[in-house]
Formats: sequence, C-alpha cells, structure tokens
Amino acid sequence: MIQANTIGYMNSAAPDFDEALDTLLRYDGSTSDDVHQAVVQILRDVRMHGDAAVVDYTNRFDNLGVADISALELPRAALLAALEGLPSESRAALECAADRVRNYHQRQVLESWSYTEANGTRLGQKVTPLDRAGLYVPGGKASYPSSVLMNAIPAKVAGVSELIMVTPTPHGQRNPLVLAAAAITGVDRVFTIGGAQAVGALAYGTQSIPQVDKIVGPGNAYVAEAKRRVFGTVGIDMIAGPSEVLIISDGTGNPDWVAMDLFAQAEHDEVAQSILLCTDVAFIEAVAESITRLLPEMPRKDIIAASLKNRGALIKVADLDEACVIANRIAPEHLELAVEDAEPWVAKIRHAGAIFVGHCSVESLGDYCAGPNHVLPTMRSARFSSPLGVYDFQKRTSIIHMSPAGAAELAPIAATLAYGEGLQAHARSAEYRK
Amino acid sequence: MIQANTIGYMNSAAPDFDEALDTLLRYDGSTSDDVHQAVVQILRDVRMHGDAAVVDYTNRFDNLGVADISALELPRAALLAALEGLPSESRAALECAADRVRNYHQRQVLESWSYTEANGTRLGQKVTPLDRAGLYVPGGKASYPSSVLMNAIPAKVAGVSELIMVTPTPHGQRNPLVLAAAAITGVDRVFTIGGAQAVGALAYGTQSIPQVDKIVGPGNAYVAEAKRRVFGTVGIDMIAGPSEVLIISDGTGNPDWVAMDLFAQAEHDEVAQSILLCTDVAFIEAVAESITRLLPEMPRKDIIAASLKNRGALIKVADLDEACVIANRIAPEHLELAVEDAEPWVAKIRHAGAIFVGHCSVESLGDYCAGPNHVLPTMRSARFSSPLGVYDFQKRTSIIHMSPAGAAELAPIAATLAYGEGLQAHARSAEYRK
Repeated sequence: MIQANTIGYMNSAAPDFDEALDTLLRYDGSTSDDVHQAVVQILRDVRMHGDAAVVDYTNRFDNLGVADISALELPRAALLAALEGLPSESRAALECAADRVRNYHQRQVLESWSYTEANGTRLGQKVTPLDRAGLYVPGGKASYPSSVLMNAIPAKVAGVSELIMVTPTPHGQRNPLVLAAAAITGVDRVFTIGGAQAVGALAYGTQSIPQVDKIVGPGNAYVAEAKRRVFGTVGIDMIAGPSEVLIISDGTGNPDWVAMDLFAQAEHDEVAQSILLCTDVAFIEAVAESITRLLPEMPRKDIIAASLKNRGALIKVADLDEACVIANRIAPEHLELAVEDAEPWVAKIRHAGAIFVGHCSVESLGDYCAGPNHVLPTMRSARFSSPLGVYDFQKRTSIIHMSPAGAAELAPIAATLAYGEGLQAHARSAEYRK
Repeated sequence: MIQANTIGYMNSAAPDFDEALDTLLRYDGSTSDDVHQAVVQILRDVRMHGDAAVVDYTNRFDNLGVADISALELPRAALLAALEGLPSESRAALECAADRVRNYHQRQVLESWSYTEANGTRLGQKVTPLDRAGLYVPGGKASYPSSVLMNAIPAKVAGVSELIMVTPTPHGQRNPLVLAAAAITGVDRVFTIGGAQAVGALAYGTQSIPQVDKIVGPGNAYVAEAKRRVFGTVGIDMIAGPSEVLIISDGTGNPDWVAMDLFAQAEHDEVAQSILLCTDVAFIEAVAESITRLLPEMPRKDIIAASLKNRGALIKVADLDEACVIANRIAPEHLELAVEDAEPWVAKIRHAGAIFVGHCSVESLGDYCAGPNHVLPTMRSARFSSPLGVYDFQKRTSIIHMSPAGAAELAPIAATLAYGEGLQAHARSAEYRK
C-alpha cells in the first residue's frame, strides 16, 4: 500500500472506485447569493448611470481616487512604454510566444463558401469577424500576460476591428507584462477597470466605453457571475472552472517530471486538480517520493499542498486502455500522455481540451508558447466544447439566393410542409414564387 | 402620411427615429420568478428520483396515466409506421427537404489537421463528434417536423453516435409528421416526455434515459429556463427569442409578396417581429394596402394582426445604403433583400442570421428546404453568433507533440514567461525538458 499523505491514492480495481472517482471529481462551482446580489446591483447601476457608476465602483473597489473616466483609460503610449521597459529576455519571450500562437491560430480561420446548383440557385455561408470584442484581464495575483496573448491573438487573427481590454489596477498598481502583451497583440483600447462593473460597461456601453459584441477572458466569482448575466446581450466565452491536468503514465520516464507537472497544475490555486493514472505501482511510489522531496523547494508549496491533498490523486490502473476509458470519463482540460510510445493512444482519447503527446510535451509549454490556445474547457465540458480559437471571434451568415427556377421547384415542397405545420402564410409566400 | 392601422409606420428621417427604433426592437425575454422556481424544483426532483420523477411529472403535466418509464419510449417501429402512414406528397416533401439540408450541412464538417515543424514538433487539432446529443421537440401547436430535420441532420452529419429525441404527447396525442421526420433523420431513441423534466432527464440521465452531452431544440419558457440552468453540466444551443424578419425593398417587385412574407413571420406568434425598410413611399403604401386586403384571408389572422400591430413596422429609408446600416444595427434573424439587383448588397450586411437574396429568395423556402439551417440567432445575437450547424455537434482537441529539440528550444521561453507570472512549478517543469 502506497503511503502518500500529501496526495490521495486510489486503485481502479477497488470495488468502490467509481464512486470514489465521482467524489474526487465533484466540484461545486455555484455562486453564492451574496455574489449574485452584488452583481445584479452593480450591473443595474452601470446600465443606468454609465461612466459615473464605473468611476464610483472603481474608486471604491480598487482604492483609487480618480475624478472621471478619462483617468481610467491608458493611452497606447503607456502600453508601448511598458513594452520598451521590459528586460530584453522577457520581451523576446513574449514576442516569440505571440508569433507561435499567431501562426497556429491562422490555420483556424474559416472562409466563406458557396455553391451554385444546376438551376442557378446559390447557397453558402458568409463568414465575418465580430465588430468589437472585450477582453477581461484580472488584476492582482492572477494577472497573466499569457492570457492576454491567448485571448487577443485569436480575436485579431479573426479580424475583430476593435479589441478593448479591461484590467483593474488596485491601488494604481499596473502589471507591465500585461500592458506589454497588449501592445504586442494590437489591443486597441485599455481601461483600468475590473470586476462586474467592467463587464457591465463592456456589455451595455457607457458614454466613454463602447459596447462590445462579446466578452472573453477569465475572472473571479463576480466577473464570472456578471458574464453569465450579460450573456445574450453580448456573447461570452466559457465560464472556466478550476484548472485540471490528467497524466497517463506507463511507468516510463522520470518521476520528478511527473511530480513537477502535477505541481504546475496545483500551484494555480487550492481547487486546481492534478491526477495521475499509472499502470505501474513502483512508478507511482516513485512519483509519491518525488512529491515529498520536491514540495518543500517550491515557493508556492502551501497552495500546491492544499490542492494535491484536497483534489489530487495517484491512481493505479490495469492498463493504458483502461486509462483512456477513465480519461474519456473525466474529459480533462489538459491530458498528458507520458508514455513511451504515445502517438497511438491519441486516437483513443475522445474528450480532452488539449492532449500533450509524449514525455517532452509538458503542459507548461502549451500554456505559454507551443502555439495552441491555453483557454480550454474545464469540468468535463470537453465532452461538448472546445479550446478558445478564431472560431469564437467569427460568425456565419447563411446565404440563400434562389433562382426563379429553383424557387419554382422548391415552392411546392415548402408549401406542403408549411400546410402540414399549419402555417398558411409560409405556404402562400412560397407559392407566390412558383 | 401613410395610414396603416394594422402596422406601425416610421421614417428614418424623423428626429426621434433612433429612439423609436430602439423601442420597436425592445423585448423583455426575462423569466418570471414562478417559472424559475418551478424549474428549479423539477430539475432537483429529476436529479434525485430519476425515472420516477419523470413519470410523475409527465402524468401530471401531459394528462397521461402510465405506470412506468418504459411506456414513454417509442420504439423505432412506431417511427417507421408514422413514416409509412404519411400521404405520399408529405413523405416526398420531407425526404426532399432532408436531402437538401444534409447536402448543405455536409460542407460544414470540420476535419482534423496538424503540421510538423522543422525540428519534428507536431501541432494540430483533432475534431471529434459529440458522443450523445438530446433533441427537444415541442408538443402542441409548435410541434414542427422541420425543426426535427434542422436539428437532427447536423448532429448526424457531425457523426453523433446517439441522438435522443424528447417530445411531449399531451393527452397521448402524437404528431405523425414529427415521428416520420425522426425516422428519416435516423434519430436513435424517442421518449414522449417534455418540459423541464425532459431537459433534466437528458442533462443528468436517469435509470432509463441516458445522459447526453448537449441539448438542442426550441421550447417554451420552462424548457428555456431548464436549458439555461443545466448549461455547464451539458452544452446547450442558443436560447431563442421571438422570430424576426427584416425585409429591405427598393420598391421593385410585388407588394403582395412582401405583405405575405411579413405575415409568414408574424403568424408564428404575437411577439414575432416583421419589419420592412423601403426606399419608396408609394411601395410602402402598396404593401400597407396588400396587408389590409390579404389579412382577412389568413387562417391565423388574429396572431398575425397582433404581431404586426405590436411589433411590426413599415419604415421609409433614404436609400439602400441607409437600409444596410439599419439592418446591421438590428442584426436580424432573417434578412430578405427584396431588391432588383440584390447580390451587390450582400457585402454590406455584416450581421444577420440568414440573408435571402432577391425577390425569389423567400424566407419560407429557407425554413423548410433550401438547405441552410433554420435555427438562427435572434434578438441581435447575430452580432456574435451563428446559425446552428455541424460545428455545434463537433468539438476540437488541441494536439501538442513536442520533439526533444522542440521542447529544448521552447523550454527557456516558457520558463521566462512562467517566472514572470510567479509560477515556478510551470517554469521548472518546462526546464526539465531542456
């Protein structure tokens, strides 16, 4: 029996494994009533009072004392100054990452198409970018320049004309890496506002902040609840749950690597989830030993320890086929195939946000600079949703151009179906075209 | 001045036009507290009691007296019998429509792709269908076989393995056209259940009804609220608002056609919206006259009259350019370009669910059999969303297969960015791959 007091241990052969796995995966992401009430009030105020409400809430929540909204917009010069001020290594890393992310996403661009039938009828779909998108970037400890790259680049590749970033600056503190990332990715305007008031400003528009068509980007519980409530008025990306990694191991490779990959997930926050599925008990023991040995070295060890203890697990599985079955059940955000001959197993994974194939393909390369997006479906939603991409900033319009012959041919068919549904005006409007 | 007591008249040159248009477009789609409370209770019961709750609510709401859930599943034989029992004209119309819709949607299938960099790193995205989808089909007056085609065909073209239809049969009344459409499109299982209890059964699964990954299809306020609440546990399609048509006219063509096209929208229900933008006052007068003359002939004249009076308008515009500007502001579900030389104007429309180009391209052909989907974004959401399509039943998984050389090259870049974000485990797990 493996003794790991830092992380739970499970065996897929145990009779209660299914229930134990369900318990491990369970996460209550529901919003508290307090958050809900506060958000409703903030959104109402922003909708009714515009700039004044945004200034008021920003002064209050971010400990500022600005007189009006103009003090909350950063000019492009401020972004460029942040970029110029970076150490050259940081700037080069950001620019390299941006180039790789751009290169990958350019392959996602949907093009318009149409086809013409023998009688001259033309059918198709026209693809257009959104006019205007809003990008939320958290302030404080979760203020990540990589998130600016991952959200802004697909929008710009899609052709969004105006990309508006909002990011709070509590006590006036700005994150130069975030501003530099905005400069590199061509963000058009930046407002130093955050919380539900920023979401409301983007969703409804104010005197100074233009209404956007879609709001993307991560945020705290207030931001998530505000996005949920403005959905419909504007589009939103997914509401992200805690971040997750699932590592499938055949017992090859270095247990320190696996331990550190579990840490990398766990260091996000206490509810992040790191799970290992492994066919080899000796390797699981080695990983447990690595965890114990490496944990004290980590600056974020308290967060990692809490995350591993509450939501992590090392799971012995019978074989890699079973591991894939369990992986499809979990539908993880990140899946690492840390196995010797990994490529054949990719075909067995039906549900995952991203698959990292082989020992060299570690999640953190994907988080920053491999090229694919790091905004991925969490909490089993990879069963039905996809990584953020250019698709999220394009939309389709169906094109129907009937020729007179085509209309004459289809009119009786439409009329028959319309009468069957009791919609006589539908039928007659088709019949007029005979 | 145009005198139309059946439908409002507006002029874009009026000083208060912007506000008047806003008022016309305004629609409160919020859910009443009663509906909300009822749905919460029903979903909780279905989640806790499974089949028993579904049977109980179905007996109560649909006036049935079944003993258990097995009586609420229709075997495939019942669908085939419905198909066999149709008049040949109806069957041929359904089959022709299904073929055309299938042909159009086959062009939407996304394929997996990947590319390999010089150092052997392979990046890509893997496209897979959803495992299982649920299709809601309303009972009663809004029970439309065409909706079965439009929802089921993209799912099957995407490759969804199991498509489960739910449709209530109040007092045991079945709609043979709906069942025949299910037979034609290859729906795998059909349960005669509806309302929030059907949405809950599909979202959570019961002893007899499998959990699906996504729920699509229209429904009443209870169904819409239930879909909203299970979103996250499963995927959902859009929550549809009232249906809308916007017709742009240059005064050419037949005013009776325009009137009937407005009726076709208005006959859906009292809150459907039918708007004409026209450059020619005389033609607007002729349309108003057609409305007055044709309305009494329509079997659904009461619904049409209420819809036109409450939410319809004939609007005089300066020219077609202005009409396009207004159309982009409205972002209508359906846009008819009822103009002589229509094709050049397509490029000026940025936001619409579907564009019907020219006098022969009437919405009702698109509703039934042109080929493109009739499930379209409503209430200005065409600014950021798209017609239902194969895309809604596929999902993408990013593939990241780093070669040793690729990992070594990117590790320092990822590490630099990770240290910049204060995520040391991310940095070290990248550095291990140097």
